[in-house]
Amino acid sequence: MKFTVTILGSGAALPTSSRKPTAQYIECRGRKILIDCGEGTQMQFRKLGIKFQRIEHILISHLHGDHYFGLVGLLSTMHLLGRKKSIEIYAPKELKLILENQLNYSGSRLAFDLVFHEVNSNESGVLFEDDKMSIEHFPLSHKVPTSGFIIKEREKERKLIGDLVQADKIRIEHFQSLKEGKDVIDENGKIIEAKKYTRPAESAKSYAYCSDTRYYENVIPFIRNADVLYHEATFTEEFMDRAKVTMHSTARQAAKIAKQAGVKRLLMGHLSARYESGDKHVEEAKEIFEQSEVVEDGNVYDLSA
Amino acid sequence: MKFTVTILGSGAALPTSSRKPTAQYIECRGRKILIDCGEGTQMQFRKLGIKFQRIEHILISHLHGDHYFGLVGLLSTMHLLGRKKSIEIYAPKELKLILENQLNYSGSRLAFDLVFHEVNSNESGVLFEDDKMSIEHFPLSHKVPTSGFIIKEREKERKLIGDLVQADKIRIEHFQSLKEGKDVIDENGKIIEAKKYTRPAESAKSYAYCSDTRYYENVIPFIRNADVLYHEATFTEEFMDRAKVTMHSTARQAAKIAKQAGVKRLLMGHLSARYESGDKHVEEAKEIFEQSEVVEDGNVYDLSA
Repeated sequence: MKFTVTILGSGAALPTSSRKPTAQYIECRGRKILIDCGEGTQMQFRKLGIKFQRIEHILISHLHGDHYFGLVGLLSTMHLLGRKKSIEIYAPKELKLILENQLNYSGSRLAFDLVFHEVNSNESGVLFEDDKMSIEHFPLSHKVPTSGFIIKEREKERKLIGDLVQADKIRIEHFQSLKEGKDVIDENGKIIEAKKYTRPAESAKSYAYCSDTRYYENVIPFIRNADVLYHEATFTEEFMDRAKVTMHSTARQAAKIAKQAGVKRLLMGHLSARYESGDKHVEEAKEIFEQSEVVEDGNVYDLSA
Repeated sequence: MKFTVTILGSGAALPTSSRKPTAQYIECRGRKILIDCGEGTQMQFRKLGIKFQRIEHILISHLHGDHYFGLVGLLSTMHLLGRKKSIEIYAPKELKLILENQLNYSGSRLAFDLVFHEVNSNESGVLFEDDKMSIEHFPLSHKVPTSGFIIKEREKERKLIGDLVQADKIRIEHFQSLKEGKDVIDENGKIIEAKKYTRPAESAKSYAYCSDTRYYENVIPFIRNADVLYHEATFTEEFMDRAKVTMHSTARQAAKIAKQAGVKRLLMGHLSARYESGDKHVEEAKEIFEQSEVVEDGNVYDLSA
């Protein structure tokens, strides 16, 4: 089952030629999610050949421009391309006013509904869930109200071993119980063992997103054991003063969070425009947490692999 | 004296990989002007290596998103890069509310002033003038209130012929009169002829901008004899129905305006995303007006050449 994260923009407040403002596209078991939407996100979708009309959920972490200035343009383009299907937006409540204000003066109404869900950045909770996955939010600590997100697959079912099931003529009405790991007694009183006829379920994966935030240990319970953690690392330690003033994190701090939370892999982004590459970030983070890397625009991370 | 127009974006409502949303950068005798500011304009400035901090005047033709969604991002970036100098914005009055609304929720104040000048799209008049140039506005006809602009150089002075002035020992206090084309009587009662000691002034150039608009002959008096006319040509004649409904122009209509106004050169832009090239537009326009061409993003037009 597909679970991918595509980096549309990995820059900070000042976009550079190689790092656009923040945006990420996630496909998780058929659900299409956009996290943040900096200026130019619609062009990044085009460049990468991603069908953005299929997006169902848009999560906006906070109202700094580099995380949402591209949203009104993306929605307008969806409209012009004929979208009719509503879209769910999870964001600080003021975003509704900002968008309505802009759309109002353009003299046109979108032909699809924007369904707003206010995200209170002081709280945590579930934003969406179905039988395949869930989206949760939790507080970050930044200069304006900001939320982090975690997308989790539901526990998966065991897989039937087709040849064996067929050879032993296991009846179809038993399949679901076997996939759920439950043994079944057939019509002759014989026990059909789930373990025998199914392979173990793949483990359910999770993706956590923490941007923007200062070093903030309160996030740890929410992201514990995530398969992949994206954590902002605007600076390296040499600019700790700037990190403090701007309430951003260093690479070392991102790695400390990753280590304490026991995640499997750390992706760092939101790099300040002063860095020409992410080499220093990686070096610094690896001293604390080996599975650290810096993302680049256009990179795709496959959690299902 | 420099007078250049740089095309930052020449696309219509739906940006493509080769045509970004509308924006143009004009340098006219030292003045730096931005006309319209579609999403991604700040990235186009970077890509083309243009020092956008020097912009003094921003003209916004109308409040359709493809003409202004990049403005708040550009202003934020100017702020982050340390701008202190105020900037003049000429636009429909609602833009002020839109920008204030967005900047307000980002929790930061710009360190420079936005000086708003309301442009009433039912009127024409002078927006700015100094001793070198002027910016005027005039009504266009589109789905929302929209203005066209014309940037005109002031009449220039004649140029002294250095060798002759020196040889005949013409005194410095006579220079200004001679440059203005006035003959002077010197201290000995001798007539110093301006025509003899100066070369003719270069002609003052003008650049007219009409986007977005339906075919609208009322613009002609305002743009008459312009050296360069930029006129939108969203469609070709085969999509006349679409042009009518959306209140845009065809290439043929743009050429008709150019011809009737007696301009020297027509630049067409704002091409619908349905066109892969501007060839059809050029072909169609040239039947009416030979000096027609379609602009491309990144093109620079030098009016002083």
